[in-house]
Amino acid sequence: MVVGIIGATGYAGAELVRLLSGHQKVEKLILSSVSFEGEQFEDIYPNFLNRVSLKLLKAEEVIASSDVVFAALPHAVGEPFAAACKERNIHYIDLSADFRFDDDEITYNAWYCKKYQFPDLHKKSIYGLPELNRQKIKEAAKKESLIIGNPGCYPTGASLGIYPALVNKVVGSNAPIIIDSVSGTSGGGREPSRSFHYSECADSVSPYKIASHRHSPEIERNLSVMAEQAGVTAPKIIFTPHLAPMNRGILSTIYIPLSEKWRVTSSEIEIKTAEYIKIYADFYKAEPFVRVLPEGLTAATNRVRQSNYCDITVHVDLNGSTLIVATAIDNMVKGASGQAIQNMNILFGFDEKTGLEAIPMLF
Amino acid sequence: MVVGIIGATGYAGAELVRLLSGHQKVEKLILSSVSFEGEQFEDIYPNFLNRVSLKLLKAEEVIASSDVVFAALPHAVGEPFAAACKERNIHYIDLSADFRFDDDEITYNAWYCKKYQFPDLHKKSIYGLPELNRQKIKEAAKKESLIIGNPGCYPTGASLGIYPALVNKVVGSNAPIIIDSVSGTSGGGREPSRSFHYSECADSVSPYKIASHRHSPEIERNLSVMAEQAGVTAPKIIFTPHLAPMNRGILSTIYIPLSEKWRVTSSEIEIKTAEYIKIYADFYKAEPFVRVLPEGLTAATNRVRQSNYCDITVHVDLNGSTLIVATAIDNMVKGASGQAIQNMNILFGFDEKTGLEAIPMLF
Amino acid sequence: MVVGIIGATGYAGAELVRLLSGHQKVEKLILSSVSFEGEQFEDIYPNFLNRVSLKLLKAEEVIASSDVVFAALPHAVGEPFAAACKERNIHYIDLSADFRFDDDEITYNAWYCKKYQFPDLHKKSIYGLPELNRQKIKEAAKKESLIIGNPGCYPTGASLGIYPALVNKVVGSNAPIIIDSVSGTSGGGREPSRSFHYSECADSVSPYKIASHRHSPEIERNLSVMAEQAGVTAPKIIFTPHLAPMNRGILSTIYIPLSEKWRVTSSEIEIKTAEYIKIYADFYKAEPFVRVLPEGLTAATNRVRQSNYCDITVHVDLNGSTLIVATAIDNMVKGASGQAIQNMNILFGFDEKTGLEAIPMLF
Amino acid sequence: MVVGIIGATGYAGAELVRLLSGHQKVEKLILSSVSFEGEQFEDIYPNFLNRVSLKLLKAEEVIASSDVVFAALPHAVGEPFAAACKERNIHYIDLSADFRFDDDEITYNAWYCKKYQFPDLHKKSIYGLPELNRQKIKEAAKKESLIIGNPGCYPTGASLGIYPALVNKVVGSNAPIIIDSVSGTSGGGREPSRSFHYSECADSVSPYKIASHRHSPEIERNLSVMAEQAGVTAPKIIFTPHLAPMNRGILSTIYIPLSEKWRVTSSEIEIKTAEYIKIYADFYKAEPFVRVLPEGLTAATNRVRQSNYCDITVHVDLNGSTLIVATAIDNMVKGASGQAIQNMNILFGFDEKTGLEAIPMLF
Repeated sequence: MVVGIIGATGYAGAELVRLLSGHQKVEKLILSSVSFEGEQFEDIYPNFLNRVSLKLLKAEEVIASSDVVFAALPHAVGEPFAAACKERNIHYIDLSADFRFDDDEITYNAWYCKKYQFPDLHKKSIYGLPELNRQKIKEAAKKESLIIGNPGCYPTGASLGIYPALVNKVVGSNAPIIIDSVSGTSGGGREPSRSFHYSECADSVSPYKIASHRHSPEIERNLSVMAEQAGVTAPKIIFTPHLAPMNRGILSTIYIPLSEKWRVTSSEIEIKTAEYIKIYADFYKAEPFVRVLPEGLTAATNRVRQSNYCDITVHVDLNGSTLIVATAIDNMVKGASGQAIQNMNILFGFDEKTGLEAIPMLF
Repeated sequence: MVVGIIGATGYAGAELVRLLSGHQKVEKLILSSVSFEGEQFEDIYPNFLNRVSLKLLKAEEVIASSDVVFAALPHAVGEPFAAACKERNIHYIDLSADFRFDDDEITYNAWYCKKYQFPDLHKKSIYGLPELNRQKIKEAAKKESLIIGNPGCYPTGASLGIYPALVNKVVGSNAPIIIDSVSGTSGGGREPSRSFHYSECADSVSPYKIASHRHSPEIERNLSVMAEQAGVTAPKIIFTPHLAPMNRGILSTIYIPLSEKWRVTSSEIEIKTAEYIKIYADFYKAEPFVRVLPEGLTAATNRVRQSNYCDITVHVDLNGSTLIVATAIDNMVKGASGQAIQNMNILFGFDEKTGLEAIPMLF
Repeated sequence: MVVGIIGATGYAGAELVRLLSGHQKVEKLILSSVSFEGEQFEDIYPNFLNRVSLKLLKAEEVIASSDVVFAALPHAVGEPFAAACKERNIHYIDLSADFRFDDDEITYNAWYCKKYQFPDLHKKSIYGLPELNRQKIKEAAKKESLIIGNPGCYPTGASLGIYPALVNKVVGSNAPIIIDSVSGTSGGGREPSRSFHYSECADSVSPYKIASHRHSPEIERNLSVMAEQAGVTAPKIIFTPHLAPMNRGILSTIYIPLSEKWRVTSSEIEIKTAEYIKIYADFYKAEPFVRVLPEGLTAATNRVRQSNYCDITVHVDLNGSTLIVATAIDNMVKGASGQAIQNMNILFGFDEKTGLEAIPMLF
Repeated sequence: MVVGIIGATGYAGAELVRLLSGHQKVEKLILSSVSFEGEQFEDIYPNFLNRVSLKLLKAEEVIASSDVVFAALPHAVGEPFAAACKERNIHYIDLSADFRFDDDEITYNAWYCKKYQFPDLHKKSIYGLPELNRQKIKEAAKKESLIIGNPGCYPTGASLGIYPALVNKVVGSNAPIIIDSVSGTSGGGREPSRSFHYSECADSVSPYKIASHRHSPEIERNLSVMAEQAGVTAPKIIFTPHLAPMNRGILSTIYIPLSEKWRVTSSEIEIKTAEYIKIYADFYKAEPFVRVLPEGLTAATNRVRQSNYCDITVHVDLNGSTLIVATAIDNMVKGASGQAIQNMNILFGFDEKTGLEAIPMLF
């Protein structure tokens, strides 16, 4: 299979190159880059020396010769490429936000300040969170070429941490779900800026874009879809991202208010915690990349580093009023390129784990 | 003035030595250490070479010759020293948890598994959060020698972030206040352990002691005292600490549910945020070490590094239901040794900033 | 093939487990650990959850059922296991220093303070630096089961950086070769200690064991063997290791005095640098894991992270008197477990790259 | 005293502001910035909030009202300001390279690609390494206003590490002195770039500008002046800088070939090491900021952090042919702004330690 990557020289693009180079169904990669067209990929990323010696082409050339195309572009520039793929009848997996909101142009426009250029494309695009939409993607892929809107990094860890609680009708409506997330720096991409200048982000932690991060509406939409599935009201959320001095990883600590019925007394906390863990473990038992850790452990980003896992631990607060769920992902893998490959595997009917077998690297 | 430090070779003790060496009222330091008795302080901490050439004595010797004693000991071993100071009629500033709970032995016993050895000492000890108890300390110090229970690191940042909201009756009762904190590694002290082993804590973030950290009851008690002051009900809290790969600093992101009356509609958020910031700024305007940052900024630990500041920023969530307050402190200074010195300054009627003038070191 | 790992719960052991889990010739792993016998490997390293669910056995059990055994033990305890493997006629690949000095017991004893327990085993053991001894290993493995002394981390990067210069008779005798190396923390292993305590090793660099590191005699021996091959005198060396705040990687900057004949004038530096680079590139052109980078690049540890590569760049000093060679390896892979697997591949006649295809992970 | 800082918003400028704010002889600071003229200093560096509320002026305004001027500008733009200060008869302390080469325009031009604009100014400017030129500065300052060329960061640690060896005629001529240095990121300044982009410089070490760093000629010149003092030949040097993932600090490991007479046999190494340490300790015994550490210790950057110290340890290699000297400085303090203040103290006859009393902050 020939796999095309447009926008191959950003961090998500380069991570796709790294992961797809080890994917046994991929015979050939072809890459494009606007910034470095005509140069060799390994000259931009010398860590790939002797491994990926490919000339960076135009996006059009990539699309013309690929069996599937990944787009790792900035937001709001990729629609024409999606259209071109649709025309060639090949799948298009988009890592930007452009196809994450389906046909909800209003939300997209409100948060990304851009209108849909090809509104029709959005009517049939599918949001690529496999744990939510695997079946839908599988079915649709049988009929036609698809556009997949690959999830944002924060929304992946957040949504997976809340899904089982929502479906099991555990969530109370007295308060919003609070998602407090800490991310590594690679989420900020390859372009140097003050926020990611070593001397000013090393050895420090701070929140950013409080009450204004673009991943808020995506998380809300996901929870609303999940709630609908379960026939419950969509919860309100508060989402606060933080930047921490680490290269990879997102740790989300999620505070889910328990509904009246599910609250627990102090004396029951231990027993109930075990029950909640079981609910989560059962929910995800068939998922290849979600690990609900046993009691006693706490999610940590170094336990999922370079892997496609989302680790989840479940706890109950001392008052018995709130479920505390911690999730850890590698933002570059399950939070971006790994999940995109998982989507490719689903689209083509490959074993979902193909190319994503890396064991987490503790250090 | 002769200042004694018992337990001088732990991190908090060494930080006291560093800070007090530059305190203009301190003529002489005398130090003790159980682990290193008889050795030279600068041999244990060679960064002090040529600066602090002092032999490490017995605690008893220190107490016998000091005008004030700081104790930077493990929990549950210091009471006899407090008693000895009381006997000698000198102030005793305790950085452990032993005197943080006043005469509430039940809570102390429940969380620290130790009974009070000298219950009488606890009846008159004062919790040393200057922003809360400055007046009380000042008054009491006029009459007799005092025992100060210096606050824990997390409770300092958490309590200061909530105090103005409580006093201004802004806090709703529909949900607990959630305190999500991230700490640097120095809070874990000098003793090597797996949790602080470089290869396993670098480049990673994780929560720990979820729903079981000993600083929870201390925060709760503080809020309850503050609530009583304001004539409002004490709020429930949920507190989750995290460990991040940085040496110093605690960043707390605090989610305070707004009471019915204080909730805001989407359209008002900007205006109301300014109002909330003003409430906080007014509340702390006379405080030498609390900085309420102007809108547009977000609290960050590197902006308070090595200083005694607590930086606070105030935000409102998108639904208008929750105040989001971020506080940043240096856990070793305002979170431990700096605050202890601030208490000494209050006890002796010195300018509160004496010895604590360090400007934060961005990098 | 069944592969045994004794000492599987140290860092090198766990890295072997990680890498061998993806090796296509390995059907089954069996593991032992003295510290954690009877426990599950994934309980010690939860990053392996759902991936490596193996009970930790006794070393004897591992040896009894394996087709090849890796030993990742402390120095001076493994000889009896090597003997047992020899008896069972299976290969034994030792990651400790015990078999790095062949039959030179005097040097081993001088630096590791231990005598050979089974001197006969050392007569036929082979030092496993593939670039030096590949042919020897291949031949010997045809005849009998072997003991491989897997190289130390520093000696690997140092020796590979000097080998081409020695063989091409470039090295002058007026001064020692200086090897100035910087290592990440994982080289210090899993056991917590002050040197690797986050608060004291983060954000700092320092040399250690100046003129006394045990890898000195190993490097010297390697250079002496290489010199003998080339019919030149063995050079003297000075080796200084440093610790830097990073998890993985060794960067060695090597200063090689040029012999009279090879010195260059200022005006020739550019031309001659290109020649020296060519000498190095030619020397290693058939090596699967040594990359001599083109002019303009400089070796960096993040360009080899998690890979088995040794990157080399070649430079000439301004006076034209000294060749400056920089080498970068991942200390856990080419510097330990990866190289051990490379040796296994050679022993069994597998493609040398099997299981070691990981592309370096820049961040 | 009114102190002016032109170029106050770069890292060295901001560090001057931080340090001078605590200098007891400084009554008032006035600051300029080209990039941020008209803005408030604390808006650019919010860590200074409530502490340094100063409007950023034009350089000319600063010069017009100051009693002494520090210039923390890029290279090759400051000469006119030096001229203006000279005209106003006030001291000018330049942190750029412009006045580091005295009247040697050829070397300056060769390395900084710029001619002297005011050649006369360079005839009387003095290189501000206090340990070398203290007396010269003191004498000259009695007669007229001076221009001080404040040393580069690497040359400070390197020169101080070699000075005693040169003066004691220990240095052999068979080989160059090798200076292998590792720097933190703050040396790269405030401007974001790929080299200092967190994701690409965290968790990695690499050399840079091998055989081409602009600090080479400055080090060479210093050694040549020192050699002349001692009546010995100036040594040749090789200097290689590295970048390590830390905010502050420069660690230099210096390999000094011993002259025939000073070489030692293996059996003497211990005794001779003690002698060499004594030579160094004696040489610097009156220096307020150079600490020659006792045997057993090794220079480390975290033991000098935020201080004006240069820590030095002295070792002998195993062959007895080479002195290995390790020096550690904080690149922002002794390597830049602290040393500039030390020069100011000398110029004005203040106690040299004024404003530079900070004890190193281990973490």
